[in-house]
Amino acid sequence: MHFGKYSLNEYCRLVESFHGSLAPGMLMGGIMVNAVIERIDKAKLHDALCETSSCLPDAIQLLTACTVGNGWLHIVDLGRFALTLYEKDSGKGIRVFLDAGKTEEWPEIRSWYLKLRPKEEQSRERLTDQILKADISLLGFQRVEVLPPFLTKRTKGEIAICPVCGEAYPKNDGPVCRACTGASPYVC
Amino acid sequence: MHFGKYSLNEYCRLVESFHGSLAPGMLMGGIMVNAVIERIDKAKLHDALCETSSCLPDAIQLLTACTVGNGWLHIVDLGRFALTLYEKDSGKGIRVFLDAGKTEEWPEIRSWYLKLRPKEEQSRERLTDQILKADISLLGFQRVEVLPPFLTKRTKGEIAICPVCGEAYPKNDGPVCRACTGASPYVC
Repeated sequence: MHFGKYSLNEYCRLVESFHGSLAPGMLMGGIMVNAVIERIDKAKLHDALCETSSCLPDAIQLLTACTVGNGWLHIVDLGRFALTLYEKDSGKGIRVFLDAGKTEEWPEIRSWYLKLRPKEEQSRERLTDQILKADISLLGFQRVEVLPPFLTKRTKGEIAICPVCGEAYPKNDGPVCRACTGASPYVC
Repeated sequence: MHFGKYSLNEYCRLVESFHGSLAPGMLMGGIMVNAVIERIDKAKLHDALCETSSCLPDAIQLLTACTVGNGWLHIVDLGRFALTLYEKDSGKGIRVFLDAGKTEEWPEIRSWYLKLRPKEEQSRERLTDQILKADISLLGFQRVEVLPPFLTKRTKGEIAICPVCGEAYPKNDGPVCRACTGASPYVC
């Protein structure tokens, strides 16, 4: 079993260092990301689209060239544990998801995935064991094509100085930056 | 000069491996993240709030315990090159921003930051050199308090199976998952 270029042990150490703990979602996520990597044409450049903000974005960031900060990882938080790697030019890609219908024979995985029991009543050891044994058998794959907005390169356009806060911001946002027009995340 | 627990060289290698290239925003971002780390009470647990999706989230993910996937990094894309580390319990924190007003004497930094010249006409070497020389002198710091939504722990609540796609999703989203009610990022 491997995770991109890493062995299981290497990946686990990396996850603990980056994500903070070896969460089940990072283990399952690593298996999913690796499974898609093995199915794409590696001669082409790919972006990633992740359908949840929990765990999976970190598995993608650790195992592919796509990160939030370089703009190649797009998160559309639909709450589905699924991801797609798609070609940057055509938008065509392969989607992988954790198939709930296939989890019947894996009670710890099913219980964790569908939140059937409180976390305290789940056995992390049995869950980890089942995830490693089930491997890719619980996954579903689909050929998909992303919508045009995911093919355009991110650009801020021209930069202006906000007359209210004095900071640089994208001129396209209007005469004043968005933080100064009500979108500030801070208590005034 | 150091970046969290890393030397300049170690940080640069890490950035190249994770982010793909040593972008100026990753160098400036690293200086900013480190500057905030040095100003917070390390005995307390902190979340991060990043005001741009460009580069800076990756510097935060590499230098703090906060990542997108573990839920401790919140991105509010206001297009301002700024971040805050705030206490998880009180919401009080320290915000750092790149102060455009202080860039007058650093032409390469100013030109890059305010996009005064096309990328091809900028000298990456001179820019890197000025960023390292300017160090924290271009930064502004503020004590801030984040709004209550940033203090609540992320939770999906109960999980249901979508009757349309058959996948697991947060029951709170309604009788059908969001992807199947028009928010799908894929061509049908």
